[in-house]
Amino acid sequence: MGIERSVLTFIGCDLEPEDASIVMFGAPFDSTTSYRPGARSGPQAMRSESFGIEDYSPYQDMELADARVADIGDIELPFGSASRALDMIEETAGAILDAGKRPFMLGGEHLVSLGAIRAAAARHDGLCIVHFDAHADLRDDYLGERLSHASVMRRAHEIVGDGRVFQFFIRSGTRDEFAFAASHTRMRRFDASGIDEVVREINDRRLAVYLSIDLDCLDPSAFPGTGTPEAGGVSFEEMRRAMMSVCRAPVAAADVVELAPQLDPSGSSTAVACKTVRELLLAMAAPKR
Amino acid sequence: MGIERSVLTFIGCDLEPEDASIVMFGAPFDSTTSYRPGARSGPQAMRSESFGIEDYSPYQDMELADARVADIGDIELPFGSASRALDMIEETAGAILDAGKRPFMLGGEHLVSLGAIRAAAARHDGLCIVHFDAHADLRDDYLGERLSHASVMRRAHEIVGDGRVFQFFIRSGTRDEFAFAASHTRMRRFDASGIDEVVREINDRRLAVYLSIDLDCLDPSAFPGTGTPEAGGVSFEEMRRAMMSVCRAPVAAADVVELAPQLDPSGSSTAVACKTVRELLLAMAAPKR
Amino acid sequence: MGIERSVLTFIGCDLEPEDASIVMFGAPFDSTTSYRPGARSGPQAMRSESFGIEDYSPYQDMELADARVADIGDIELPFGSASRALDMIEETAGAILDAGKRPFMLGGEHLVSLGAIRAAAARHDGLCIVHFDAHADLRDDYLGERLSHASVMRRAHEIVGDGRVFQFFIRSGTRDEFAFAASHTRMRRFDASGIDEVVREINDRRLAVYLSIDLDCLDPSAFPGTGTPEAGGVSFEEMRRAMMSVCRAPVAAADVVELAPQLDPSGSSTAVACKTVRELLLAMAAPKR
Amino acid sequence: MGIERSVLTFIGCDLEPEDASIVMFGAPFDSTTSYRPGARSGPQAMRSESFGIEDYSPYQDMELADARVADIGDIELPFGSASRALDMIEETAGAILDAGKRPFMLGGEHLVSLGAIRAAAARHDGLCIVHFDAHADLRDDYLGERLSHASVMRRAHEIVGDGRVFQFFIRSGTRDEFAFAASHTRMRRFDASGIDEVVREINDRRLAVYLSIDLDCLDPSAFPGTGTPEAGGVSFEEMRRAMMSVCRAPVAAADVVELAPQLDPSGSSTAVACKTVRELLLAMAAPKR
Amino acid sequence: MGIERSVLTFIGCDLEPEDASIVMFGAPFDSTTSYRPGARSGPQAMRSESFGIEDYSPYQDMELADARVADIGDIELPFGSASRALDMIEETAGAILDAGKRPFMLGGEHLVSLGAIRAAAARHDGLCIVHFDAHADLRDDYLGERLSHASVMRRAHEIVGDGRVFQFFIRSGTRDEFAFAASHTRMRRFDASGIDEVVREINDRRLAVYLSIDLDCLDPSAFPGTGTPEAGGVSFEEMRRAMMSVCRAPVAAADVVELAPQLDPSGSSTAVACKTVRELLLAMAAPKR
Amino acid sequence: MGIERSVLTFIGCDLEPEDASIVMFGAPFDSTTSYRPGARSGPQAMRSESFGIEDYSPYQDMELADARVADIGDIELPFGSASRALDMIEETAGAILDAGKRPFMLGGEHLVSLGAIRAAAARHDGLCIVHFDAHADLRDDYLGERLSHASVMRRAHEIVGDGRVFQFFIRSGTRDEFAFAASHTRMRRFDASGIDEVVREINDRRLAVYLSIDLDCLDPSAFPGTGTPEAGGVSFEEMRRAMMSVCRAPVAAADVVELAPQLDPSGSSTAVACKTVRELLLAMAAPKR
Repeated sequence: MGIERSVLTFIGCDLEPEDASIVMFGAPFDSTTSYRPGARSGPQAMRSESFGIEDYSPYQDMELADARVADIGDIELPFGSASRALDMIEETAGAILDAGKRPFMLGGEHLVSLGAIRAAAARHDGLCIVHFDAHADLRDDYLGERLSHASVMRRAHEIVGDGRVFQFFIRSGTRDEFAFAASHTRMRRFDASGIDEVVREINDRRLAVYLSIDLDCLDPSAFPGTGTPEAGGVSFEEMRRAMMSVCRAPVAAADVVELAPQLDPSGSSTAVACKTVRELLLAMAAPKR
Repeated sequence: MGIERSVLTFIGCDLEPEDASIVMFGAPFDSTTSYRPGARSGPQAMRSESFGIEDYSPYQDMELADARVADIGDIELPFGSASRALDMIEETAGAILDAGKRPFMLGGEHLVSLGAIRAAAARHDGLCIVHFDAHADLRDDYLGERLSHASVMRRAHEIVGDGRVFQFFIRSGTRDEFAFAASHTRMRRFDASGIDEVVREINDRRLAVYLSIDLDCLDPSAFPGTGTPEAGGVSFEEMRRAMMSVCRAPVAAADVVELAPQLDPSGSSTAVACKTVRELLLAMAAPKR
Repeated sequence: MGIERSVLTFIGCDLEPEDASIVMFGAPFDSTTSYRPGARSGPQAMRSESFGIEDYSPYQDMELADARVADIGDIELPFGSASRALDMIEETAGAILDAGKRPFMLGGEHLVSLGAIRAAAARHDGLCIVHFDAHADLRDDYLGERLSHASVMRRAHEIVGDGRVFQFFIRSGTRDEFAFAASHTRMRRFDASGIDEVVREINDRRLAVYLSIDLDCLDPSAFPGTGTPEAGGVSFEEMRRAMMSVCRAPVAAADVVELAPQLDPSGSSTAVACKTVRELLLAMAAPKR
Repeated sequence: MGIERSVLTFIGCDLEPEDASIVMFGAPFDSTTSYRPGARSGPQAMRSESFGIEDYSPYQDMELADARVADIGDIELPFGSASRALDMIEETAGAILDAGKRPFMLGGEHLVSLGAIRAAAARHDGLCIVHFDAHADLRDDYLGERLSHASVMRRAHEIVGDGRVFQFFIRSGTRDEFAFAASHTRMRRFDASGIDEVVREINDRRLAVYLSIDLDCLDPSAFPGTGTPEAGGVSFEEMRRAMMSVCRAPVAAADVVELAPQLDPSGSSTAVACKTVRELLLAMAAPKR
Repeated sequence: MGIERSVLTFIGCDLEPEDASIVMFGAPFDSTTSYRPGARSGPQAMRSESFGIEDYSPYQDMELADARVADIGDIELPFGSASRALDMIEETAGAILDAGKRPFMLGGEHLVSLGAIRAAAARHDGLCIVHFDAHADLRDDYLGERLSHASVMRRAHEIVGDGRVFQFFIRSGTRDEFAFAASHTRMRRFDASGIDEVVREINDRRLAVYLSIDLDCLDPSAFPGTGTPEAGGVSFEEMRRAMMSVCRAPVAAADVVELAPQLDPSGSSTAVACKTVRELLLAMAAPKR
Repeated sequence: MGIERSVLTFIGCDLEPEDASIVMFGAPFDSTTSYRPGARSGPQAMRSESFGIEDYSPYQDMELADARVADIGDIELPFGSASRALDMIEETAGAILDAGKRPFMLGGEHLVSLGAIRAAAARHDGLCIVHFDAHADLRDDYLGERLSHASVMRRAHEIVGDGRVFQFFIRSGTRDEFAFAASHTRMRRFDASGIDEVVREINDRRLAVYLSIDLDCLDPSAFPGTGTPEAGGVSFEEMRRAMMSVCRAPVAAADVVELAPQLDPSGSSTAVACKTVRELLLAMAAPKR
């Protein structure tokens, strides 16, 4: 009848799922956020505002069409029940992996990563986690809750074990978290020095990577729109380079989390998040050297 | 493969176009806005935020499913060219009417109404316009431009002629606009007194109605998120009742325009717009008494 | 040593708990909020901004000192665990009641009321609930969760039973919620007509009242700073009068919930909440006629 | 040389001072504001945003050109010194009166009125003050300061004496202020009932009026952009009618104060202030019946 | 009569046009903005907020009085007609050049540069363009429109020809735009490396410079208040140094565009724009070494 | 009775004053702010938001408990009277010093430093001032007022004399202020180069330090939430290092001023301020090497 439906996806990510190599989905959840909620609006904001950037990257000389991505929209998650939300995320990420594609999740608060990590760990023997963040996220519990954004890497460590969690840009945590990291994870404080060596080691050990980017690893000047901004972070360019380094290892799944768009009324945090997503999608799809 | 795409539509408006009785689309255009732009973001904001209201109306005891609506998303319009944008809107509204359905447009600035009015007037001999607004919109031109949000009802009058434009809630305009109205339109200032008589007359004359609701007819207290807020307007409840009155006549097409969501960071203007859309959709679909 | 500590309480509520007749506390929780969180910041915002109003009421010719109130600050609640949060609220409200004082809770999302209602129902045989709200809050569950802000009055009804929940200003809900209300609660839609009759009946039946005020019963024009603004509400003055009516019955406990201060950057929603709290405290303390 | 300077004045107020009947100036001062400053930006915001309204009033069927107004811009006032600021305001208002014109001041916090009142009282024997406000402004001092926005009408009373200060819409103050009003001013609480009688009396006693409009007399829903929003106020329409009533008496000077534009990011408070200014200018200029 | 009019100009730019060496004017236009409008408010915001900076520069040890600037206010431009707006800008810039002065334009969206470039190219044989921007602005058309902010440097290239457009800081564009640049302009991506060599070449070729600064060349951290923020930009200090380099060549005309002040409610983007304008005015006026 | 009062202090600063080594208090004053007020809300915002950071510092491997701090809340200061406010601040700081503890003041505008400097200078013979700021603050008066935020270091210089005021990061002032600095203070422009030499000199001369940190020394990208943002400043990390350097000298008293939290709706300025306070408290308490 000539009446066309127009669907909003992330720019350049409008393939049908069956034709895609990477499947993007949103996990709009932030119920365990302790300080300032709002990350639940992250995925939809990234989609809407992605049209403010181009689908071509002059950094990588690629267009998003080259990455073959299908954005399938948001999972409808129950607020207030972290464990059920994680199950639903695990199920979606698992279905994508089972179809031979790579999941790319837009958060939401950082706890959502746990669902996708579970799915990836169940399907990749040698999974390790590369974690960009201002916060260690290694608490055993937060006010008694074990499923909390502040505990997500502690739970992930329980799944993948010692020496398989690589943390960069960390500049906040309790004394206990830093002590835990000293024994159990590989943590680089403040910046990403040494990341190339870590990537070489990952490749040598033939590990697959789950890359989890908490955007608050950026300095609040570059990314104020997040629940717990932490001074002393890096610029977009520093984070971009670290991201490029990681993508020289095989990335089995990835997420970009903790954009809380309303907290930055200028919208520039959302624009930064969109460019991060574009560069990461392209780098995951780029032929490996 | 079990990976479902989820599409964002206005709440309860997710039919396929061919199954629908009313087809909703967005016209994200605001290039002629003279004062404070932003209405281009209106349609997408209404979709996202429509999930803050219910799909059931206790006013009409109906659910949106009863109205059989398909939201087909936004037309991609060229910024800076009013005449091409109007052509594209006219084409979309025309296709909907030709398919035997009723168009329901989300603006955008008020000029977008002209495209849909052209389509409706070309297909309905006895079309009249019912216009809710704070502003007369009857200028012959605005700074030399004849296609301007401030001239939309003047252009519409050129199409439907004298005695076929019914204006309510008008409280702003030039001396010339009020003089023009005295001779050529039926204008009620400040409120909607007499609207029931007008509707009776429309039914008696067997006219079809194009209902154009500029949400700035509401008082700025109820609706600050708009380009030209004008003090002295009505409450949501007064506007809702006037809208119910109009729907006792046959409404061939309708629009709800001039939400500029970023101008009201509280989001309550968007919530008001969403409820207006829901109530109008239901009233258009309700069996006529 | 001459160095005085200065403590921030709600204006005029700085008694020691043991000297008070009413004990105010904050419940900064919003984890089940489905739409726009932020109510967790309500209690602290009301304290800070209460100094923008006077402690004297020209409506009641009383000062807050006359109400003998101790504001003991906020309970530290676990985000993400509704059931543990409710237990802690119940415990605090219970301790206040056991000390022979009346609890006055500042929310927080509406679910927090359930904790205080439990405490009050356990100590008052004939407890009824007077509920001001835009939303029915009568869902059996919300996305599978039974402890949700959208279910709080359904849960409360399970405690106090049929004919003991009196609802006013309700203008949003599902078809099922309105059906439930028809059989099990006493609901007045849109306004507070008939409230004087209800209060007389409460007095006749010798019930004690738990008064729960969801500030979104106000029109979004008067109170945009809330998670789910719903058009078509009442003015502050209409709500104030209804509140005065209720206080002609014995109010055993009360709460004022759903201020999300950051959502209204003008701060006027917080100012409205503060004045509501002042007038309610004074009315609860006023000698009954 | 063909290069024209364009000067920003309030819309329609661009006469040269010598050709004007009314001279408008801004008093951008807010140093004594106790709660939320920002009123210093009021005058410039009103000028910029006045182009969002028309210069024609359908209420009075007049254009601003008919009122013959020169807007001469803002006085540069010293922050932190209330007494010097008041002297400068008194001097400017005095020069305007000495030139046979009427001063129209845009505030600024309410204390600025005192400077203009002094100038007017020194030149009009029978000066009385009509005061629209939410707050009584009758404190003898505020935290020890006698020159405070909270004391402005107490100071004004010292100049004009008992029975010459007429207050409307008052709904906030200390117990002492209401007691002072009972003996010394003519105060109407909450609304403007009886204003027509007051105007008749003013005309009978052949008094000249200084009209001081603190825009926070409006309800916060209509005017959130002000330092101390106070729930329970009136609509724009109610204030407009009261203003029209006052202008049936001879108004020697006037001010519109307490717009703090940044506090209302929607800009609708500024739009309301602009329309208030337009209607008041026209009413002051309208031929008296 | 002693009543002085006070006119708001950019700080320290209050000469009469005939006494000035540089004439500043505003071009408040943004109708072709594809993403987030608001740049139309840029010029007036810079004027108002320029009083937050000093008129003395410790970088150049000069005061704005030394630069002899007249700010003549804003041109009144028709919204919605790019071609008429450009004609009016061309006319104003031409009149300034014809009077032997240099135009300095405050935007507005980037398209406004085209009007001033036309005027300068018509009067300077050897005009070249130095262009600071995040975006290439080299599209042949944008959604069919050839007069668009995304096409401004493509149109400018048509006027001045190959090898006369020097672009710095570019980090966004389509694949086609970068290909066009490779053949027709001199583009430096991401930073301003090599700018000193470019300036030497300009001086050697005896070209006159039109300097067009799109403030979004800055990183969004430093300048979030713009329509299309693009991550990965430079700091104010890096841009300032590049600007100083350019001013070692003769600058015939200049503009500073794309401040959208409302998009950055903190106001710091406006403050950055003001300091950019001050430093550029002083550098243009400084004696050449 | 089991009802505990919960008091909001800065995180980890909840000792009783008599048990503390450092006593923190707020000075919520901003009446002389010439440009954009709001700093009066700084202290309370820092307290509320301090819970978004940890009490452990990975930079110094210390917890706030190690610094033994009592936050005694805010002094209630009279708006509009700078001289009385300064007296009250001097009195509080003096009482703290007389009790053998160190005062740590949260501003407020920069003028508040003068009160604490007076108290410290009266009790420490060899007091010098280390001043971090974008602005010289050396005006003799501002619009005739000698007690102004723009004059605070001029007044401080009158107390401590030549060669005892060390200024860093200065990038704004009048020509006269820079000339004054050349003769009377030790000023480093733009950055903190040479600070280690200055600290050595301070230690050699056995001076005690009053450290006054105007947070606007930071670049507006890192700290937009301040009254007069000035482009070209330093990152948090650069300021943090300079602060660590200063704390190698004995710091007798300190302040952190000019956070205006509402001006940065993202809240990241407040988060930066909180981390500055934490790091400074720890560095003041750390054992000297």
